[in-house]
Amino acid sequence: MSLNFDSLFVGDVPDGGRVAPVKRGKYDFAVAYPDPVSLPNEHIVESVAEALAENGSDLAIYPHPQGNTLLRQYVAEKLSRDRDINAGVDDIILGNGSGHPIELLCRVLINPGDVVITDDFVYGGTLNNLRKQFADIRGVQSDASGMDPEALDATITEAKSQGKKPKFVYLIATFQNPQGWTLSEARRKEILAVTQKHEVPILEDDCYADNRYDGESVTSIFNLDDTDSVMYVGSFSKIISPGMSLGYMTAPPSVLDKVMGIKTGQRVSEFTALVVEKYARKYLDSHIEKINGIQRGKRDAMLSAIGENFGTSAEWSNPDGGLYIWMKLKDGVDMVALHKKALDEIDVGVHPGSNYSPDGVSGKNYLRLCFGYNDSDEIQTGISLLSDFLTKEGALD
Amino acid sequence: MSLNFDSLFVGDVPDGGRVAPVKRGKYDFAVAYPDPVSLPNEHIVESVAEALAENGSDLAIYPHPQGNTLLRQYVAEKLSRDRDINAGVDDIILGNGSGHPIELLCRVLINPGDVVITDDFVYGGTLNNLRKQFADIRGVQSDASGMDPEALDATITEAKSQGKKPKFVYLIATFQNPQGWTLSEARRKEILAVTQKHEVPILEDDCYADNRYDGESVTSIFNLDDTDSVMYVGSFSKIISPGMSLGYMTAPPSVLDKVMGIKTGQRVSEFTALVVEKYARKYLDSHIEKINGIQRGKRDAMLSAIGENFGTSAEWSNPDGGLYIWMKLKDGVDMVALHKKALDEIDVGVHPGSNYSPDGVSGKNYLRLCFGYNDSDEIQTGISLLSDFLTKEGALD
Repeated sequence: MSLNFDSLFVGDVPDGGRVAPVKRGKYDFAVAYPDPVSLPNEHIVESVAEALAENGSDLAIYPHPQGNTLLRQYVAEKLSRDRDINAGVDDIILGNGSGHPIELLCRVLINPGDVVITDDFVYGGTLNNLRKQFADIRGVQSDASGMDPEALDATITEAKSQGKKPKFVYLIATFQNPQGWTLSEARRKEILAVTQKHEVPILEDDCYADNRYDGESVTSIFNLDDTDSVMYVGSFSKIISPGMSLGYMTAPPSVLDKVMGIKTGQRVSEFTALVVEKYARKYLDSHIEKINGIQRGKRDAMLSAIGENFGTSAEWSNPDGGLYIWMKLKDGVDMVALHKKALDEIDVGVHPGSNYSPDGVSGKNYLRLCFGYNDSDEIQTGISLLSDFLTKEGALD
Repeated sequence: MSLNFDSLFVGDVPDGGRVAPVKRGKYDFAVAYPDPVSLPNEHIVESVAEALAENGSDLAIYPHPQGNTLLRQYVAEKLSRDRDINAGVDDIILGNGSGHPIELLCRVLINPGDVVITDDFVYGGTLNNLRKQFADIRGVQSDASGMDPEALDATITEAKSQGKKPKFVYLIATFQNPQGWTLSEARRKEILAVTQKHEVPILEDDCYADNRYDGESVTSIFNLDDTDSVMYVGSFSKIISPGMSLGYMTAPPSVLDKVMGIKTGQRVSEFTALVVEKYARKYLDSHIEKINGIQRGKRDAMLSAIGENFGTSAEWSNPDGGLYIWMKLKDGVDMVALHKKALDEIDVGVHPGSNYSPDGVSGKNYLRLCFGYNDSDEIQTGISLLSDFLTKEGALD
């Protein structure tokens, strides 16, 4: 007789289950992978040798609860230099990717039913974390310049009128995933004026800030805020590799204290942290320059292929950075069904827009196209295949 | 004006705060570190180069939600060979150390006020995870052979009579931390008979199973159970290093499914996993043999130093493996106060016994001594200093 655990589980845990990883397409525009060819593996090996020679005996010791101090020091210096954020080493917490700090923040801030505000289409990983806490997720309409401050004001006002003051506004202000826009400094200030008026915090996810191919950097919302109301997360996934699983956060002291209250047992690989610190001080700036050159080329290849193949039969974004192009097809197209068929029939992977909507349903006629993984020739071929496929399926205007 | 987050936090998050890491003693018998000299750093560097040459482009890809498949395959093979556990690769979930799976299991199983059963003195990290869930932790008395099955039966029966059927029994059956005993196969079966009768699961923490210096291996409780009621965690921390932050779990399918439901965002470093798999297949068995020889020598050095210095003025354990000696001083001694004084005055680090009691108060006259970190000469000196100090403080019989 097997024991039945069902009566033992707590009530508010979603039944995620073990799921087989999704099949990947040869033309993989689905997930935001970086270029696999330019991974800095040779310099990583060199950095391992140096890090272990210098600090290898540290591996015998359980790391600082907030994560390796040398890497937190590097992160503090980088944030000051690149994002105008002044955070001391004690104000940085390392995580396993940026999804980990986001998950911790959701857990300390969200009771089931609490309102959290996002864009109308936004990063699916964060939506999953919000759903896991049973948040009432409300999307705010964006235009080509990003979230509309007036619509945000109306959404917060409505929630408050229902007695549900939002717990925070989640924003990817730079190279938004999946929409690609970047909030201007003026727009950031307008949004901050709204959230500050309502005393609602912002969670700023800045994980693409380094992946700029055109235009001038815009300072962080964290920097523009003078009311200690912004929580900030970043990551090494898009500038070294997702396989490092290294991200970080900073936030007002009371938030950092709460997060450390539940971080028990969730350590970050000290080995990876030592290696990344050593690598980053020596090579990261030049590596970012190199991969941005490669990714600029891939973006241009994809935009050019889309222009040639899609003409006026769809609308799409033209991002200055990041890894995504966001495409709108005509009303009524169901990319949820078609993206599976495309994977089977033409070996092209894309994500349907509904993966990015708070209700999980809206946006079926949108798709997200990542240009990081394949080379330019493959991008050209894959986009051509996709255009032919969508034409055949009657999905284009 | 700063935003006040206090009204935004959820109610049931403990206020952990950011705490400064505790000062370490020159004679560091406090935390269970492995020998820092014998860390396999040279072979790790070699394994990094090999792993990245073979599978380095995998770092561009987000890893399997349950963790790197190659390393899960290795863990499945090792568990089958060493612990008589037959788990497929899909039944293994990797975590950041063993504390991570323990934390996830606590979160899917424990509502505030739920009863969980442990030993009378047990690993503080698990106690912290249980407290974070506001569990009602009940310790069962152990003798020199470990948890007493009759006392366990009585404790479960009492909890059930209060309408609080325990959620699970947490056991470190081999080289228990901090007490050092190992449950015999007969005792394991007696305990299983009790838990099966009451339909209460066991969480078996087997993280010291490889660190045996004398005697014969005892099979896992997981193996002895035929009712699918045992959850199992293990770790690479004590056989490679804590800095790898790599552990794993297996459990009945319904439990694995629930755990995956909340593991969102908590990834494990794919980089570390690739390196550890490559290292483990080539070097881990011989490395374990080597460090066990070193740790056997350190254990003997500490037991010998304790015998010489403490004579009949205290009682202590004589473990066949693991990293700890558990010492009992006379009633009334307050090691909570004295361990701080010892660190300041004689640079010797130890943990007071109350760190390991479910109520956090009992056991002040006990102390835990780890023999992994210092060399044998330092152990001799540190124990002599500790003995003199405790004599001066009137703590010895």
